[in-house]
This record gives sequence, structure tokens and C-alpha cells, in this order.
Amino acid sequence: MPQVSDHAPLLMIAVDRTSDAPMHRQVYDQIRDAILGGRLAPGRRLPSTRALADELGVSRNTVLAAYDQLFAEGYTEGQIGSGTRVSRVLPEDVLAARTAAEARVEKATAPEVVLSEKGRALLAAKPRVHRSMKGDAFRPGLPEIDRFPWIQWSRMVAKFWRNPPRKLVSYGDPGGHMPLRAAIADYLRAVRGLVCEAEQVIVTAGAQQAIDLAARALLDPGDKVWIEDPGYAGIRGVLTATQSELVPLPVDDQGLVVTEGRKRAAEARMAVVTPSHQYPLGPVMSLARRLELLEWATESGAWILEDDYDSEYRYAGRPLSALQGLDSTGRVIYVGTFSKVMFPAIRLGYMVVPPALAEPIIRIRRSLDDQTAIVMQPILTEFIESGHFAAHIRRMRILYAERQKVLIDAVRTHLSDVLDIAPDEAGMHVVAMIRPNANLVDADIATAAAASGLSVYPLSEFYVGTPDRNGLVLGYAGSESRDIRRGVEKLATAIRKLANAA
Amino acid sequence: MPQVSDHAPLLMIAVDRTSDAPMHRQVYDQIRDAILGGRLAPGRRLPSTRALADELGVSRNTVLAAYDQLFAEGYTEGQIGSGTRVSRVLPEDVLAARTAAEARVEKATAPEVVLSEKGRALLAAKPRVHRSMKGDAFRPGLPEIDRFPWIQWSRMVAKFWRNPPRKLVSYGDPGGHMPLRAAIADYLRAVRGLVCEAEQVIVTAGAQQAIDLAARALLDPGDKVWIEDPGYAGIRGVLTATQSELVPLPVDDQGLVVTEGRKRAAEARMAVVTPSHQYPLGPVMSLARRLELLEWATESGAWILEDDYDSEYRYAGRPLSALQGLDSTGRVIYVGTFSKVMFPAIRLGYMVVPPALAEPIIRIRRSLDDQTAIVMQPILTEFIESGHFAAHIRRMRILYAERQKVLIDAVRTHLSDVLDIAPDEAGMHVVAMIRPNANLVDADIATAAAASGLSVYPLSEFYVGTPDRNGLVLGYAGSESRDIRRGVEKLATAIRKLANAA
Repeated sequence: MPQVSDHAPLLMIAVDRTSDAPMHRQVYDQIRDAILGGRLAPGRRLPSTRALADELGVSRNTVLAAYDQLFAEGYTEGQIGSGTRVSRVLPEDVLAARTAAEARVEKATAPEVVLSEKGRALLAAKPRVHRSMKGDAFRPGLPEIDRFPWIQWSRMVAKFWRNPPRKLVSYGDPGGHMPLRAAIADYLRAVRGLVCEAEQVIVTAGAQQAIDLAARALLDPGDKVWIEDPGYAGIRGVLTATQSELVPLPVDDQGLVVTEGRKRAAEARMAVVTPSHQYPLGPVMSLARRLELLEWATESGAWILEDDYDSEYRYAGRPLSALQGLDSTGRVIYVGTFSKVMFPAIRLGYMVVPPALAEPIIRIRRSLDDQTAIVMQPILTEFIESGHFAAHIRRMRILYAERQKVLIDAVRTHLSDVLDIAPDEAGMHVVAMIRPNANLVDADIATAAAASGLSVYPLSEFYVGTPDRNGLVLGYAGSESRDIRRGVEKLATAIRKLANAA
Repeated sequence: MPQVSDHAPLLMIAVDRTSDAPMHRQVYDQIRDAILGGRLAPGRRLPSTRALADELGVSRNTVLAAYDQLFAEGYTEGQIGSGTRVSRVLPEDVLAARTAAEARVEKATAPEVVLSEKGRALLAAKPRVHRSMKGDAFRPGLPEIDRFPWIQWSRMVAKFWRNPPRKLVSYGDPGGHMPLRAAIADYLRAVRGLVCEAEQVIVTAGAQQAIDLAARALLDPGDKVWIEDPGYAGIRGVLTATQSELVPLPVDDQGLVVTEGRKRAAEARMAVVTPSHQYPLGPVMSLARRLELLEWATESGAWILEDDYDSEYRYAGRPLSALQGLDSTGRVIYVGTFSKVMFPAIRLGYMVVPPALAEPIIRIRRSLDDQTAIVMQPILTEFIESGHFAAHIRRMRILYAERQKVLIDAVRTHLSDVLDIAPDEAGMHVVAMIRPNANLVDADIATAAAASGLSVYPLSEFYVGTPDRNGLVLGYAGSESRDIRRGVEKLATAIRKLANAA
């Protein structure tokens, strides 16, 4: 049970001076009703007589008289000095009233629930893969939160709140805190090769919300959308909600196969891609493929949604600029997140939209959820500008590269006959392919692993269509090396058992 | 211009050991490209040679050689010890490259922007009334933020961040932080007479998002929705986004006229109401009307969305319980916000849904924007449980009652011939009706007031249909008494000038 306070919040009572009933009686009646109706639970403290008298605009004697009567009748208990509380053992009628209230709740649990068509579609959408607690080896997408510079961060947070600028605790800009937008634009230009200005950056409550916002602003029911197959399951819910028609396309070692898209649905309105590091397989989209995709979008007036979810972590090879940096006709919407480079609970992401889309999307956003909570934004801005952000990413990049190596070494040591694993130049997870002669199916391994307390994701779960690959998605960023090693040993044991049973 | 850092974030460079080009040349080329491409702006600091060497896995001498060459050619400047920066005066070719990049942005500002049908509908929706900076007398809905207990709050914030529980900085529950949900349920049962459990409470990023979520989960395009006319403009954007058909209904002194709704659209799927304090006119929905509304909803299987936006501030009269507390068939969705009782930037609201809706709505929410930022939720929970929340509301209730009185007295002193104003038993604004014989139109007064720097809202802006009332909506909660008095004097001057000009 969650902890709850024993202070009664404001009581919902008032006195009517025109009534025939004496005021102390009115106060008594209303508090008694609140107790009987279950609104004041046993053990809850009542306000002091002085506070309640002030609140109601009556004399303290009036409240004292009411409290005395409640006490006399057993509704309250307590001593002078320690406050008055609702009795823990109540007169019998309380129980009767409580039962009636519970019956109502009971009844209320079974109304006719008719969800909207998109609501039903969302519920029917393949559920997104579950996430990710610290210590759970192999869950993808979870960063290392123990090594975050909490001391520096908490100093900045404390400094901000000691005397917050009043305009930063009021309503803010639906596009986000302008200095943060400027810092993001600056960062993306320098690190990811984007061509953008601060005004094109819209701060959102996570990348997921950015994708949702783009989909709502740009897609009509029935519009076709190219998605990568396999791909990120989270994207599918958002697209389902706009009642778009998903067009799953194959992915090869150069990324999304654009020619397939042109063949199956040249008229699509949007393509959702992960060019820097295809999710979950890992290839970088080749320059030729990028130009092909841009050409299609420009020709057909379609949008490209570039989800650059983990580009900060590149360990080898020369990083290609973001696709957005190649876009000369304003077709690319770039989406990024701070969940993975800071910590997930910060719940801040961003989208960079073509200049012509910035104002309409900000206005639409304002009508929908108005704005992203501003309170973390100035603090994050300071964290970036002070250099702590870049330093943290640098440290994590070294750490995650080590962890990836530990994972690959362990898999090669314990499971080389079953799994084919190769280093990935980037990211927070690797995909280990199941060797054909092992005669094992990824979903069966995942089930067996789950029984051993491991969160191994089968590659088949990332597909909309029929999977053409058989493998395991193994996250490593958020786990200590010793947990990774132990996890691989456990996985090996589970797989042996499974193979023997077959 | 927003302040930006002079630290270069991570440079997007890497060395290729298989290349024929010497490594120092590769480093030089890439940094030069970044400067020429505008990704490294003049004055930006480069990483230290040691940091960059570590990052690239090359010797420090390699980086030193590259830096020396960049310095020699005028791309960088700086001295040993103070770091290397991109030159403030760059070789000429930089300017050419920069111009090209700008031309691309220019071009990108004018693509064919085809928004979705709902996107266009959202843009066409009557714009919501603008909000609200401290010091702006009369803007409705803005609380007093100078009297918030910042010291106590900042202590709780600092304490939380010094060593945050790891599970509270990772991914959280899409329904919200469970102890906060329990505290909200507890508060609503005690203060607003709701019948609810913590599991029915869903924490959202503001009330607006809660309404959006309910609309997406429950309404299909073309579904009819009863709204109050006049009413809250913010609701209309959200409903427009689901392509619902708005059915504006009149409001009398008992609240929404349910018989009109039955006559015009008995088959509606939802009614959005403000029973505690009709927005903006102020009447409390009578018990008879509440029962009538519930009866209709139960009969027709429709939903009632109860927006209880400012019920914390009641100054006189006995507060009625929330409509939700009367609902025995699970048709009411109750929505509330912390923006007005805490401070707007906290951006936390909540919905209380019938038990049968809790799980589907939480699952739908998870697919859309996943979850509300958790970071403020444990702190808010502590703030509520420690009693600071209730104490702050009590203090603000006294303060706002005084401010309302100041406003009414000032209007009666300076504008009694033009405006008919009466105390409101609740809320953060009052509506002053324009006397018919004054021969003035609310929108004209608002325009004249705006020219004097006042944010007076014409009642007609709150209507969808033809306004049947002529008045001004005057907020008072967020303004000091002296600003209210001064504002009324300015308003009187503006109105006199307008009347004389007519």
C-alpha cells in the first residue's frame, strides 16, 4: 500500500447563516457526513479548531462545540495538543454506509465500455516490448543511471528552485524554453550535421510524443506510411491512432529498401526511418539509399520522419550526418530524445521540423496538450551549456563500448554454437542471430530465458510481417559487466535445457 | 538572442585506420569541414587535445598536429592553457559555405505543407484565449505565484535529487507514480466527495492532456459532443482533433440546459461540463440538473467529462460534491489540474476514470506519449502529504477572496454605470455584465483595453454560437490588489474614451 498522509486536507464544508440550524450543528452534521460517507477515513486528523474557524469565518467556540459533540458520540478521538482524529473504531452505521459506497464502486466497474475506433485499434496494436529496470540484463534502450553525475545535476536543480524566475514557473512557450531550443539546435548542428535554427526545434515530452504530434498534424485516416520491418514497435501504436495504413518494408544492409516502397505504395504520405542505426538490426543507411529516399519524398511531397534514437553512442566508423542535413526541400522531421543520454524520467525529447512546419505544429500542439513541462528545461539547458552533458556522453560512450565487448566475448565463449554475434559500431544493444543448425526459434528462447529471470527479446517481436530473421536483441548499456557475464551464463544454461528438451 | 555555450559538444569525427590519409590529416579535414559547414561556429571551443585523442583512440601527437595545422591556416585561435577556439574572423571560403547553407534553409521554408484534416481543423479552431504573465491584471486562470512556499518546495526538490531512488529516474508507470495517485484519490474523496480508488487516477501533463486522452479513447469522427456555450475554448481544439461534432448548448443559472441537449442531439456520445463553477459564467450546476444529466448519460451510454478546474477556491456557500460522486453507473470522467493550486509550470493534471476504463486508457496512453514525466511526482506527493499543499490552498483562498472584493469594489466605484458586477462564490475570475443602456460591445472594450495594456477578455470570445450575453471576464487571482485597483482605473479611462468616441 502506498503511504498516505494522516492530515485531512481541506474539509468540504461551509456554514449557511440563513439556515435555522445553529452553526455548530451545521459543522457537526457535515463532518459526520464526511466520516459516514468514507470521505474522512479512520485515523485521519481533523484541522485544528482555530484553522477551521478561520476557514469558515465562524468563532472558535462554534467549532469547539461541534468537535465536542463528535467526540462525545464516538466519531472522533484524541487529546488536546495532539489533535483530533477520526476514530479508528467507528459506530456501526459507518460500516453500513461504507458497504453501500463499495457496492457502488463494484457496480461501476462493469459499465458498457465502448472505446473509439482508434482506441480499439490502439488496444489491438501489438503491445510494445516491455521495459526496463536497472539490473535486468539485456533489456534494450536502458542507459546506465548509476553513473549519471547526480551531484552536479542536483546542485543545478537546487539552485534553480531556490528562487525560480517567475516566468519559468508560469505558463511557458508551447515550443519549449527558447534557450533550450537554441542549445539543442547548436548541439545538433555540431554533432549530427543538421541544418536548423532554434525556431525549428520543438521540445516534447519524449520522442514518442514528438512522433505522435507529427502523425496527428500530417496524417489522415487511410494514409499509407512506410515503416521498417523489423522496426520499433512503439511507432506502430502512434500510427495506428491516426488510423494510417502501415506499409512494412524490408531492411537490408543499406537500410530501408526504398525500391520496395515505391513498388508497394509510392503514394505513401510518410516514411518512418532510423538511418543512423537501424532499429533493431543496426545497419547505417547508405548515402545512396538516403538520396533515393529523399528523392522519393521530394517527388511525392511525402514526409520523412527520422528517428535518431541512439546516435550519441557510436564506437567505431565515421558517423554519417543525419538525413536531415541532406534535405534541401524541407521534407524531413528529425526526432531525438534525452531519455537515453540523460535518464529516462527526464521525459524530454524534441523534434526538428522544416521551417514551414514549425508554426503550424506549435499551434496544433498548443491546442492538444499545450506545452511540455517547462520546469526541467532551464536546468537541462544549464547542464548542456556547462559542458556536463557532453562529458557524460563521452564517459558513457567509453563505458558502453566496454560493455558491448563484454557481452560479445561472453556470448562467443558460452554460446558460439548457437548464436552468431558481431560487434555493432553503435548503440545500446546488439542482435545475435540464431545459427540455422541450432534448430531453435527466438520466441522459444525468450520464453525459456524469462523463466530464468532474463529479459531477452526475440527479434520476431519487432516484425509486423512474417519474420525473415531469427535472432535475439540483447541490450547491454544499462547493465554492469558482471551482470552481463552472469546473464549470458544463465542464458546458455536455459538454451541448453531447451535444446535437450527438443 | 538566447545564450549559447562556447564549448563544442562532441565532435562528429572519427579516424579510418585503413585509409591512406595520415590520421592527423583526417582529423584536420573533418574539423575544417565542420567549421566550413557552419557546424562549429566562430568562437566555439574545441575539445582539449587529450580529450579528443582519448575519444578517437589516437595519440595526442596526432591531434596536436591537426590542431597546429588548423591554427596555422587561420581556422582556429587561442593560447596554450586557455584552449583552442574557432577563429572569430574566418578565411573567406567559410562565408561562401555559410551562404550556401542559408540558401538551403531559405528554400526549405517554402515546401508544400499539406496538413492532415485534423491538423487543418485544429488550426482553424477559434484560437484559445491567450494567457497570462504575472502583473497582467485581469487575465483569468493565473494563480499567485509569488506567495507559493518556494522555500519548502525547493527543500523537497533538493532532497529528492541529492540521491534519487533509481526506479524514480528510470521509466515509470504510464498511469503515474502510485503514491501520488493514492494521495490524489485521498484528497478528492475528502474534499470533493469523489468515490474513487488510486487505480482510477491517471496522472497527465495537465488537464488539457487528460481531456485529449479521453477524447481520443472514446470519440470517433462525427460523434456529437455537448459543450457549454459559453465555455472553455481550450476544450474545442481537443474535440476538433478527434473530428467530433460540437453541439453547443445554452447555460442558465442551473448550469447546462440538459433538455436542450436532448432535443438537439440526444444521441451525443459525450457531454463536457463544469458543474462546480460553470466556465466562465460561474453558476453551480443544480442537483436536479446533475441528476438529469446523469440520467441521460446512463440511458444513452454517453460519457460525462467533468472539468473541475478551480473548485479549490470556494469562498461562500456550501460546496456541492463533484458530479462524479453521484455517478452510480460509471459514466463520469473527472478531470483536475495542479496548475492553479500549485504553479502552472508544474504541468501536472489528472483524470479519474470509471474502474472499467482505467486499464484501457492507461494502455492507450502508453502507446501515445507513454507516461507523464515522473520527476516531479514524488516531490508533489511529499508536498501534499506533509500538509503544505492544503495550507497553501487555505492561504490562497483567503487572499483570492480579498482580491475579488477589491476588484468588485473598484468596478462599483469607477464603472457602476457601465458594468454590472456581483460577487462570485468561487473561482479566480468574475464576469462583469455590460449594462444594456451603456451601448457598448464587449469586444470593443477589450480592444480599447488592450491598447492601454490590459488583458480584458470579452465574454463573446467564449461562445461558439451567437453570444446571448455581453460582458467582460476579469481574472483577479494572480494580481496584487494595487494592480487590480490601478487596472480598473485604466479600464474606466479606456471605456470613457470609447463611449465618447461613439
